[in-house]
Amino acid sequence: MGFWKNLFSGTDTSAFDPNSKFRPVPNYDGEILFSTDRNLDLYELEELCDAVGWSRRPIRKVRIAIEHSFIVVTMWYQKGQFKRLIGFARATSDHAFNATVWDVVVHPEFQGKGLGKELMREVIHLLRKEDISNISLFADGHVVTFYQQLGFSPDPEGIKGMFWYPPY
Amino acid sequence: MGFWKNLFSGTDTSAFDPNSKFRPVPNYDGEILFSTDRNLDLYELEELCDAVGWSRRPIRKVRIAIEHSFIVVTMWYQKGQFKRLIGFARATSDHAFNATVWDVVVHPEFQGKGLGKELMREVIHLLRKEDISNISLFADGHVVTFYQQLGFSPDPEGIKGMFWYPPY
Repeated sequence: MGFWKNLFSGTDTSAFDPNSKFRPVPNYDGEILFSTDRNLDLYELEELCDAVGWSRRPIRKVRIAIEHSFIVVTMWYQKGQFKRLIGFARATSDHAFNATVWDVVVHPEFQGKGLGKELMREVIHLLRKEDISNISLFADGHVVTFYQQLGFSPDPEGIKGMFWYPPY
Repeated sequence: MGFWKNLFSGTDTSAFDPNSKFRPVPNYDGEILFSTDRNLDLYELEELCDAVGWSRRPIRKVRIAIEHSFIVVTMWYQKGQFKRLIGFARATSDHAFNATVWDVVVHPEFQGKGLGKELMREVIHLLRKEDISNISLFADGHVVTFYQQLGFSPDPEGIKGMFWYPPY
């Protein structure tokens, strides 16, 4: 797969075509591109996370987390020479059975246009390509429907997502 | 921490003492030991998983999963020269923020004696020692109470565990 990949059109969501060329996205005066390169500007990522109101995290730890994620997907808006980070997602994995998706974010200015779904489809596509059969995530209540539309089920067969909290 | 570690007594479950010596566990004519060594006999692990009725998984993939887990904890029953694998758990992680626990198993002959809790306390202890703040897991309905007793909360703040299923 090429280093950069353009956004697949909304008419076929079954898989991404690794050989497709960059294509303009409808309603955008520019292009939406995906990358799996981890060598990104972590301050630009911090700005993106700031934009959606996430708590700041130490850059040093973010670097470690990215380094030890199984896949990292970034989404970019490009117009001419101008390129801007507008989305991010990553997944941890045992490289064999399970992957868990974390830190899914789309810049507010680019939300509501189906780009979050395209970002997640890219994540799913990459994990399936690596033969991961069990893709999981922990969704805030207000995005459960979003993930359901992508094929995720909450509490399938009664399985509960649980988090541990320190007893002090 | 030593390679082998004995089971901590039930009177103090706050933390494991890495310097403690092997100690007999009440009601057992032998010792219960923990290890983080990944170089285990995968056929012995398969036998353990068979004993609780799990579907068989390719040994090749189990090896990859263990290799790419952040921590692996095995629990052993030892009496004299005899040593038997009676428990297993592992966690994937980004080495910075999140860890997710998978494949928690205790042999049926050793269930109902608090050993599952000791195994999980060991997992939590190791993850906390690595400065992981977010420990998560996906629990089958019938073990939700078990994990609650260990400090895990189901759906905290409305967060839903979700799994992706192929659309075909």
